Amino acid sequence: MSSTLQQSTLSSSNDLPRVQTATIEDLDQITDLLTALFEQQGDFTSDPQRQREGVSMILEQPARGRIFVLRNDDQIFGMVNLLFTISTAMGGMVLILEDFIMHPSHRGQGYGTLLLDHVSNFAKQKNFARITLLTDKISEDSQRFFQKHGFAHSSMIPMRLNID
Amino acid sequence: MSSTLQQSTLSSSNDLPRVQTATIEDLDQITDLLTALFEQQGDFTSDPQRQREGVSMILEQPARGRIFVLRNDDQIFGMVNLLFTISTAMGGMVLILEDFIMHPSHRGQGYGTLLLDHVSNFAKQKNFARITLLTDKISEDSQRFFQKHGFAHSSMIPMRLNID
Repeated sequence: MSSTLQQSTLSSSNDLPRVQTATIEDLDQITDLLTALFEQQGDFTSDPQRQREGVSMILEQPARGRIFVLRNDDQIFGMVNLLFTISTAMGGMVLILEDFIMHPSHRGQGYGTLLLDHVSNFAKQKNFARITLLTDKISEDSQRFFQKHGFAHSSMIPMRLNID
Repeated sequence: MSSTLQQSTLSSSNDLPRVQTATIEDLDQITDLLTALFEQQGDFTSDPQRQREGVSMILEQPARGRIFVLRNDDQIFGMVNLLFTISTAMGGMVLILEDFIMHPSHRGQGYGTLLLDHVSNFAKQKNFARITLLTDKISEDSQRFFQKHGFAHSSMIPMRLNID
């Protein structure tokens, strides 16, 4: 209890954004960030109720994935969603990276790198063999960002079928 | 015991290929099929030990995925690997379809459709909201096959980072 109080006192005087594992308390803010992302992306339609359900499922089932947020004491500025699955190519657990979002107010200040470094360290520590993401064809900025951090384009293309 | 015997008697007189859920007994044959697939694909290198480990993990953790095989009594001619994950876009569980393979001796006879119909029915019954697959950019036959079955191209492109 005393260490919580101390931390809170410290961070109010030095409330810099840092990366943390999201908890169910963050559900509302994460849903807002996600809904904003889906409003921008051509492939998806935003639906706050669906986004909320998906996020809840991940937060409630830590064996299926993890959400990391960039936050200060009061607010969440960025997030990334990692899903855990198995690869027959790699012969082990791999990560799918989705919903990598940085609020416009916090872009261009290295916070994306901070968040992605956190992901890489998590992957190494937990022995995930690979990280795969699907990025928007149109967003060259986003592709350059991931390339700069070692991600390579693959020769595969995604196809999707929605089940009614 | 008697029902097993009866089934075996029946199928020896009518040993048509059918779709079944794979079990750990199928590990060797599935590994062989997969290794052959990875030898053909530019994005991956084949490594029988890795393929075997990946398949074992899926067969041992039915909450993470399912492998369906096309088989008769003695032999496996085709397979598909389904992985279960969560989508914040759909707000529920979704399927990733990987390793859809049909042995050359069994192509062009409707077995691919049989296998894919099994997948669709499974998705509907278990309330998965979407199926996503990554297909090889070069393989137009494969793209046409999935398009014919309702799959649509997405505007996303995959990027990957292998963790050393």
